[in-house]
Amino acid sequence: MPRVIVWGENVHEQKSKVVRDIYPDGMHETIAAALRQDSAITADTATLQKPEHGLTAERLANCDVLIWWGHAAHGDVEDAVVERVAEAVWSGMGLIALHSAHFSKIFKRLMGSPCALTWREAGERERIWVTNPLHPIAAGLPQSFELEHEEMYGEPFSIPEPLETVMIGWFQGGEVFRSGVTFRRGAGNIFYFQPGHETYPTYHDPVIGHVLRNAVHWAASDQPRLAAPTDAPNRPVAEAPEKIEQRGPRLHQDGEEGLR
Amino acid sequence: MPRVIVWGENVHEQKSKVVRDIYPDGMHETIAAALRQDSAITADTATLQKPEHGLTAERLANCDVLIWWGHAAHGDVEDAVVERVAEAVWSGMGLIALHSAHFSKIFKRLMGSPCALTWREAGERERIWVTNPLHPIAAGLPQSFELEHEEMYGEPFSIPEPLETVMIGWFQGGEVFRSGVTFRRGAGNIFYFQPGHETYPTYHDPVIGHVLRNAVHWAASDQPRLAAPTDAPNRPVAEAPEKIEQRGPRLHQDGEEGLR
Amino acid sequence: MPRVIVWGENVHEQKSKVVRDIYPDGMHETIAAALRQDSAITADTATLQKPEHGLTAERLANCDVLIWWGHAAHGDVEDAVVERVAEAVWSGMGLIALHSAHFSKIFKRLMGSPCALTWREAGERERIWVTNPLHPIAAGLPQSFELEHEEMYGEPFSIPEPLETVMIGWFQGGEVFRSGVTFRRGAGNIFYFQPGHETYPTYHDPVIGHVLRNAVHWAASDQPRLAAPTDAPNRPVAEAPEKIEQRGPRLHQDGEEGLR
Amino acid sequence: MPRVIVWGENVHEQKSKVVRDIYPDGMHETIAAALRQDSAITADTATLQKPEHGLTAERLANCDVLIWWGHAAHGDVEDAVVERVAEAVWSGMGLIALHSAHFSKIFKRLMGSPCALTWREAGERERIWVTNPLHPIAAGLPQSFELEHEEMYGEPFSIPEPLETVMIGWFQGGEVFRSGVTFRRGAGNIFYFQPGHETYPTYHDPVIGHVLRNAVHWAASDQPRLAAPTDAPNRPVAEAPEKIEQRGPRLHQDGEEGLR
Repeated sequence: MPRVIVWGENVHEQKSKVVRDIYPDGMHETIAAALRQDSAITADTATLQKPEHGLTAERLANCDVLIWWGHAAHGDVEDAVVERVAEAVWSGMGLIALHSAHFSKIFKRLMGSPCALTWREAGERERIWVTNPLHPIAAGLPQSFELEHEEMYGEPFSIPEPLETVMIGWFQGGEVFRSGVTFRRGAGNIFYFQPGHETYPTYHDPVIGHVLRNAVHWAASDQPRLAAPTDAPNRPVAEAPEKIEQRGPRLHQDGEEGLR
Repeated sequence: MPRVIVWGENVHEQKSKVVRDIYPDGMHETIAAALRQDSAITADTATLQKPEHGLTAERLANCDVLIWWGHAAHGDVEDAVVERVAEAVWSGMGLIALHSAHFSKIFKRLMGSPCALTWREAGERERIWVTNPLHPIAAGLPQSFELEHEEMYGEPFSIPEPLETVMIGWFQGGEVFRSGVTFRRGAGNIFYFQPGHETYPTYHDPVIGHVLRNAVHWAASDQPRLAAPTDAPNRPVAEAPEKIEQRGPRLHQDGEEGLR
Repeated sequence: MPRVIVWGENVHEQKSKVVRDIYPDGMHETIAAALRQDSAITADTATLQKPEHGLTAERLANCDVLIWWGHAAHGDVEDAVVERVAEAVWSGMGLIALHSAHFSKIFKRLMGSPCALTWREAGERERIWVTNPLHPIAAGLPQSFELEHEEMYGEPFSIPEPLETVMIGWFQGGEVFRSGVTFRRGAGNIFYFQPGHETYPTYHDPVIGHVLRNAVHWAASDQPRLAAPTDAPNRPVAEAPEKIEQRGPRLHQDGEEGLR
Repeated sequence: MPRVIVWGENVHEQKSKVVRDIYPDGMHETIAAALRQDSAITADTATLQKPEHGLTAERLANCDVLIWWGHAAHGDVEDAVVERVAEAVWSGMGLIALHSAHFSKIFKRLMGSPCALTWREAGERERIWVTNPLHPIAAGLPQSFELEHEEMYGEPFSIPEPLETVMIGWFQGGEVFRSGVTFRRGAGNIFYFQPGHETYPTYHDPVIGHVLRNAVHWAASDQPRLAAPTDAPNRPVAEAPEKIEQRGPRLHQDGEEGLR
């Protein structure tokens, strides 16, 4: 029973009539509603404007999968919150980064690469092909599905080689894009999913909701979080699995912490 | 003809008689000397104490492979230099991270994961096995080679799944470690190589020098650098490869830069 | 509720008193019993000696995960059955290959590589380290676990680069081995797990049983099988997602099957 | 100085006037001529009709990279030759599989998966995007390049997850395909490259020739071949790297070969 937080930047919904007309309650609420069609998912929301962007340590501790949508205000997300989210991922929380979140601080932080691409806002048609049938994220999908209007995102997409490429998008204007790709960072599962430009009704599309529900189940772990994923514990001679003796010169004294 | 910069933190060489006795000119000079045994490699050095840590934009622009050794002073490396190095890697510079550089800012930055491990400074024996024979980094190596004294680094090593696992280490005290692993970030090749604790003469070992020379040739690209690896260029309707027409509502006006 | 078939070669159990004393009902029955400790798993068995080795098309159609143990009689497995199993994997059945099954026809068939290794039957101690904590196959495992007596399997293990390396083994005699590795072939999940030499009581070990139960849940798919995983269907011009016209010279006439 | 054998099936060139008009000397000769534009490459040819299909043990022993084009007569390739080629790859020979060779015995043998796809012979336009800039196979390529007429190959392409995805193709009719992907099997580098339907002049295209020359240099190893890639040598107690004693019951006597 995955517990999800849908994080929405919630900026264009306030500033742009076009966006507000499509998502009057905010994109995050539309996405959360799509998740709630699966009674096995609990979906809550958080936004940039909340204290700590709605992502307190306590909330993250009780979150199985965080979904991230941001675009206009990546730079306004506090670095401390980004680090907190990264640690949650490393300890086992799933993360789903949507569309323009390719350039979010948290996604770039976890990828370690530019995550750049080419783009065009022309309302063109996209057709997404499933390249990995029976992957849990593709469960129940047709071979391909269409979005009549999407922003073009084109290769090269400067991500690390994915763990698995689940979907590739075709664009009317002639480009292609790895639209659904998975990664693991520490103990956390990560899915990047390309559709979702805010001037189009993408998150009202039932197939998109279906993918998101699949992705939540895929990304969620049913195991307890790792306690201290960034710790590098010393295992002294006395606790070595095989009997050995201390030899050679040393920098560290017994019981000392490692350098970082 | 790869041009290499060997970056040495150069702290324990100054503070610790044990380290200075092994590396009187600094670890970076010993490593550079090992590289220079291959006349096809040009090796220069840089240290933490130099202005901009010896890693100016100009030097990085003329560097094919950067080798990084640090331990005591990871936190003293300026973030701006770390970002500069990361951009150089993304644009095509190779990076070889040695031993305790698993916790260097630059390696963690590029991995996007904790890069944590367990450790023990007991001078125990390590034996490194080649898991990927004929990989260019393993060229000319025996099936395995020994280091009579090394610091134990143990799994779990919280790196992303490597592109290729080239070597795995066996430790006398009972642990194992993925001792030689490759990654690509943007257009840059990355190799992490575990041996090299500063209280042992590891970088005087001829087999270690052999691996480092191999790794330099593997990591170096003979292609011009990517000009702007973090840019996300707009490709407007008029430049779409296939003829399309502007449709639907828009956030961006023609010629506008993307949001970041 | 995964339905499992445990396939046992069942040769050394008949020929060798040592093996029979440890596994009086056959290794396959001991493995099946370990799986049945999880009431969510249904485990049945099959052996080399049965007609079609107990792996009829009907049984495979109703099998979610096939576990394979073989050693002395790899060559006696009929090629037609191997192909049938391969097709089942490609269509979505999970496969767990145990120990000496690294050289089984089916595992080599699916890997496309030699799957060779070095070995020593000396009853030495093995310690297996979890390299990928919170991976579903490692759920609930300690950081490492020991087998007091195992056959040494050593690197290089000539498998393709795994999807994920979940466990690495340390051997008393000085070797290492990628002891738990995952792959996907077509729509089927594959896990190779190294412990299980027939002269030792490995499959009576509770931790080994725990790993096998985890692996079954990981490998099983809850989706319907792909209908025809080896078919390459023609999609004629009239069914192209985008309107196009037939152009240029042709080899094939409308409705013709592709060449194979 | 890579030595290449270009293997051509050479069937449609004989049977089809259309193909013969484009490739009067056979496709293999056109491909070889494209390679010879690089004076550092030595290119020879072989065809199905030659004894042992022109792929004797001696020729393979002196071949750094084998290029394979086949379509109409996959089934006529002798299994013994396929195994010989597979062993050569495992020992370090590079392999480049072109277009319809996705269904060749040798490519399927090395992948261990169906290698199926969808297709349409409509002479439609393909545009191939480089997804991995500065990858050696993409050296000197533009961001994308077009083929005015190609056979559509569409996802899902049931290959194992590639080591690296270098190129993705866009088709006019609405499909996408992973058009350039790399693998390693044993010590051999493998590149699959999708363009090359025999009724179009693809191998006369200078960009295609450029990719093939790049791929040859990438796939070739400058190291001696592995002597016996399928052997699983015993390493007896006396030769264990760490001193151990024989313990426990045994199947094998000293000096005995392993079971296969």
